[in-house]
Amino acid sequence: MDDFIIDSLCRTERDNASEYRKVLPEVINSILVSMEDEECFAHIGDDPIHFSTSIKEMIDKFREILFPGYFSREKIDGANLVYNMGQAVSQLYDILSEQIVHVLRHDCLRYTKACLECENTGNEIALKTIESIPKLRISLAKDTKSVLEGDPAAKSHDEIIYSYPGLYAITVYRIAHILFNFNVPQLPRLMTEYAHSRTGIDIHPGAQIGEQFVIDHGTGVVVGETSVIGNNVRLYQNVTIGALSLPPNAGVKLRGAKRHPTIEDDVIIYSGATILGGETNIGAKSVIGGNVWLTSSVPKETKVFIESPRLIYKYQENREQIMQEQIKQEGLNNEYQV
Amino acid sequence: MDDFIIDSLCRTERDNASEYRKVLPEVINSILVSMEDEECFAHIGDDPIHFSTSIKEMIDKFREILFPGYFSREKIDGANLVYNMGQAVSQLYDILSEQIVHVLRHDCLRYTKACLECENTGNEIALKTIESIPKLRISLAKDTKSVLEGDPAAKSHDEIIYSYPGLYAITVYRIAHILFNFNVPQLPRLMTEYAHSRTGIDIHPGAQIGEQFVIDHGTGVVVGETSVIGNNVRLYQNVTIGALSLPPNAGVKLRGAKRHPTIEDDVIIYSGATILGGETNIGAKSVIGGNVWLTSSVPKETKVFIESPRLIYKYQENREQIMQEQIKQEGLNNEYQV
Amino acid sequence: MDDFIIDSLCRTERDNASEYRKVLPEVINSILVSMEDEECFAHIGDDPIHFSTSIKEMIDKFREILFPGYFSREKIDGANLVYNMGQAVSQLYDILSEQIVHVLRHDCLRYTKACLECENTGNEIALKTIESIPKLRISLAKDTKSVLEGDPAAKSHDEIIYSYPGLYAITVYRIAHILFNFNVPQLPRLMTEYAHSRTGIDIHPGAQIGEQFVIDHGTGVVVGETSVIGNNVRLYQNVTIGALSLPPNAGVKLRGAKRHPTIEDDVIIYSGATILGGETNIGAKSVIGGNVWLTSSVPKETKVFIESPRLIYKYQENREQIMQEQIKQEGLNNEYQV
Repeated sequence: MDDFIIDSLCRTERDNASEYRKVLPEVINSILVSMEDEECFAHIGDDPIHFSTSIKEMIDKFREILFPGYFSREKIDGANLVYNMGQAVSQLYDILSEQIVHVLRHDCLRYTKACLECENTGNEIALKTIESIPKLRISLAKDTKSVLEGDPAAKSHDEIIYSYPGLYAITVYRIAHILFNFNVPQLPRLMTEYAHSRTGIDIHPGAQIGEQFVIDHGTGVVVGETSVIGNNVRLYQNVTIGALSLPPNAGVKLRGAKRHPTIEDDVIIYSGATILGGETNIGAKSVIGGNVWLTSSVPKETKVFIESPRLIYKYQENREQIMQEQIKQEGLNNEYQV
Repeated sequence: MDDFIIDSLCRTERDNASEYRKVLPEVINSILVSMEDEECFAHIGDDPIHFSTSIKEMIDKFREILFPGYFSREKIDGANLVYNMGQAVSQLYDILSEQIVHVLRHDCLRYTKACLECENTGNEIALKTIESIPKLRISLAKDTKSVLEGDPAAKSHDEIIYSYPGLYAITVYRIAHILFNFNVPQLPRLMTEYAHSRTGIDIHPGAQIGEQFVIDHGTGVVVGETSVIGNNVRLYQNVTIGALSLPPNAGVKLRGAKRHPTIEDDVIIYSGATILGGETNIGAKSVIGGNVWLTSSVPKETKVFIESPRLIYKYQENREQIMQEQIKQEGLNNEYQV
Repeated sequence: MDDFIIDSLCRTERDNASEYRKVLPEVINSILVSMEDEECFAHIGDDPIHFSTSIKEMIDKFREILFPGYFSREKIDGANLVYNMGQAVSQLYDILSEQIVHVLRHDCLRYTKACLECENTGNEIALKTIESIPKLRISLAKDTKSVLEGDPAAKSHDEIIYSYPGLYAITVYRIAHILFNFNVPQLPRLMTEYAHSRTGIDIHPGAQIGEQFVIDHGTGVVVGETSVIGNNVRLYQNVTIGALSLPPNAGVKLRGAKRHPTIEDDVIIYSGATILGGETNIGAKSVIGGNVWLTSSVPKETKVFIESPRLIYKYQENREQIMQEQIKQEGLNNEYQV
């Protein structure tokens, strides 16, 4: 191609591109008009909430302080510990108080940028949340130790702290639960949903969960808003602690009611089990087998497992057999899991 | 250690490190040779597609416009709305048209960097996609409202828009579906897989889905390519709308055929249910219970639930009981879920 | 509001804010004191490990080289291939050797920043890992081709490489497995957990997996540490290859023992199936149906599926029917999945 052709091609291309761009203002206008549609959602006139970056930043800062030295950028030793952690806590306070004030103002009826009450409440909640860090550290240490005790694949506490999604989700839940109890809007759920996104573990910040809580693998776990879980409880992947099915318009009617089960101390719930309903109580030291579906209570020290569905084996020679004996054995083994 | 020893240690270390680096060119060479292996995949001579950053950027920009003011960096009010959104739409057009032209050229047989047809088609599709934003906004507003109506844990529309993974996945699906209908390659699937990665919800961009679609919790949901879903359908976690098992080499033979179910209006499908097959039709206003496995059609207004597997309770005193009565009760409650 | 009031409001606000900040040093102090609690975890005096950014960076660099041209920032063609890939491999070596040396030193008993043995071992492992890239490329090419053969929704090899989470998780597993075999601590698990976080697929780096491995959809898949998987095996979402339930304190006792099943060549395992136990062996060419729960071995060429739970249909007129015939049909179809 000689220069002329290339040049003319380029020009045509440019012309074509600008052809489409010419229509843009009209399209933009129709979008702007659509923003006045009151049936749709717009957040105009409100302060923006920069959640996408700040939620991660906030959680990272919390983890830096809760597990000092594990997630810091610099090496932490005796010489710089005070300076380093001091600065980290101070930064966390700034991020946290800013975010809390933001969401309080966002939901504040007499919304104004200068609303002093929101400012004060927000600062106070941020401070109280940070004050609970020493307690949180003890609680997370217990969670971490419980993992190592029960999981042969775990090599060390360090490995659990660095890489276990269950511990990550529980850490975020424990922080978010504190904010939830202070009635902070938006933020707690955003934090647990961030953890849900990273881990597949969906714990509502309103759930009440005791010490030494372990979630293994974890993908697909759901723990509902009004669940109450005791100490030393262990869950595996795909366990649901949920609500019974909801009548139409339940969203409005049932807000606040206890809709999720109570799990007492020292219970193990194997993968795929589903436990539903606000009046369902799982007694202490019980074991719920894989895939069990429960909507009623169970006394303490009970093992519940499903009589497993009969398995149909088709062998090479294509005769079909229903192996009753084998089935029973499977049934008995069914309390086991993962 | 005196300076001499430290110095010599450092030197040795450096020498050792460079020892390994010396072998590197040889290793690199063997890797380069391996790139000529035609059995392996290389993308040499093609334009690169910068998906990793741009998919997120594109989705973020769409959400900024679809929910104005929610995800903007600055506060949006009457004074800057026109300017702000105008700029956002214009930016979106640039990102989108660039990406579409890219993928069109990538798959274009007479590939050339200056292919004008790809350029024009790409720009046109980008424009048409953006033109559908007002309609998309209406559709997403209906999705959002349906969540609040059915979920007692949802506190406000804002909370749903900010933090619900179901709405996120549906938003991305609705955008990707438009691009899929314009036969844009690569991009639609990349977008829904990005959402899958963030939410655990795997909706193929080819699926046809009506209004007021709700997915709660969502981890583990799969909606296959040729699924057809009506209005006001609600799914819970781990629901599969999938294909029946595939004969060998099905990949090639079945491409394009309807392999996934049809779900009519006003259907609820509880967690863990699996519905399979291109001829399976779930009639309007039906309810599919948790863990149900369906490979055949169901007439309208039907409730299907499983007779739950009998539960075996082992109490403390170790006698074993099969509680027939309790089982039945569980069976009846089994339509409920989460 | 006149200027005076605004000014005084601002001042009060500032005063209030600083009021809270004043308490901060005290709070920081109590947190610092809590860091001496030996029951809690701190990582003080150890080198930090910058995992959060570097794990992603490392995986990205590996993928850039394993699938040349697909994930590069610049276009790769004959002219720059050598230069480009040469530089990429050299960068990978630097990142990888630095990380390996880091984690080796972290676990090294006679920990010192200048520990030469760690340095040398780390560099050597990095080099050997990179040397296996040509073999890895062949292995990943086989994985990619197997996806296209079996999945009618897959449009091209490019689409699989760009967007399939199963291939992503397998790629990361195959790299991590090499490092695991060199006894590198921390890093392998961190890599597979990063992939778990992105894909919902949890493959332990210690698992042994053959060629042509396919995972479709994948959310909720768990493959345990001591699993052995042959060639040409295909898994769907929510499949667990796991351990039987663990006696108390199993974490300590069972570390290292074979606790997970063996899956022979050419086996398909449909969604939701759970296979447990170190002595469970699934014979070659077997098919395990959706939701099957297996804790004992199966001979080769066996199809196992569950006699599906009887379904209860409630029709509009509210009479209840248990449809025995339909149940059987469902049972027979139950080998199918997704």
